[in-house]
Amino acid sequence: MLEVKQIQNGIVIDHIKSGNGLKIFNKLQLYKAESPVVLLINVESKLLGKKDIIKIENTFDVDLNLLGLIDENISINFIKDGRVIDKKKVIIPERVTGLITCKNPRCITNSDDYMQPTFTLISKEKLEYKCNFCDEITKYKI
Amino acid sequence: MLEVKQIQNGIVIDHIKSGNGLKIFNKLQLYKAESPVVLLINVESKLLGKKDIIKIENTFDVDLNLLGLIDENISINFIKDGRVIDKKKVIIPERVTGLITCKNPRCITNSDDYMQPTFTLISKEKLEYKCNFCDEITKYKI
Repeated sequence: MLEVKQIQNGIVIDHIKSGNGLKIFNKLQLYKAESPVVLLINVESKLLGKKDIIKIENTFDVDLNLLGLIDENISINFIKDGRVIDKKKVIIPERVTGLITCKNPRCITNSDDYMQPTFTLISKEKLEYKCNFCDEITKYKI
Repeated sequence: MLEVKQIQNGIVIDHIKSGNGLKIFNKLQLYKAESPVVLLINVESKLLGKKDIIKIENTFDVDLNLLGLIDENISINFIKDGRVIDKKKVIIPERVTGLITCKNPRCITNSDDYMQPTFTLISKEKLEYKCNFCDEITKYKI
């Protein structure tokens, strides 16, 4: 088994559904990180069978809304001096700003750079969001 | 520091130039792996300052030519029962089959599915290869 020792300071994104680890790595643009980052895929998990894990040294800031959109089973551990100081579960966000593009090509958010696309959740199961500007339904895809 | 314990059976691709780890992960299509895989980026290295490492459990087969094309400083450790049983350095391949596409649009390898594009190295520094069919010079890009 591959195992990774505890990080000293940073965050651990755990219980990522197997297959979603690389997507989250890319969405969070971790390839631009200056500090060490570890992506583990297909790790054994009692809960999920297999899971992916991401460990990021020297980072405490992640977009919980973005993670919630990708995978609502994710848990985040905040580590300081080698000890877990906080744990958070992500949730599917009720309101989303900026992470989704409205699929209506005539929506003002697609033509005006100053209009931030904003959406309201209408279906948790289907990850469907309604645009606050034009009411078009857009499904979030990772 | 992030550290990863030794794997039991598999390979460790070490001394990857920082930034190339994800490219190799993608080129080797490790996102399709069934067994555990670890990608470490920005790990401290005496030799390189920073380096990336990839550890793959239950795999002994990697395309050394492909790795040589991407990064000639890579070393590969083969692990069995937790011990290193073999080490290999990659080299920039003199002959390449299939990994490069000829940039000449009229080259037969771009129109005939049965013709395997084959190239001969003409410049190590620039990673330039000459097509064995049409003599066009193509530079390998990762």
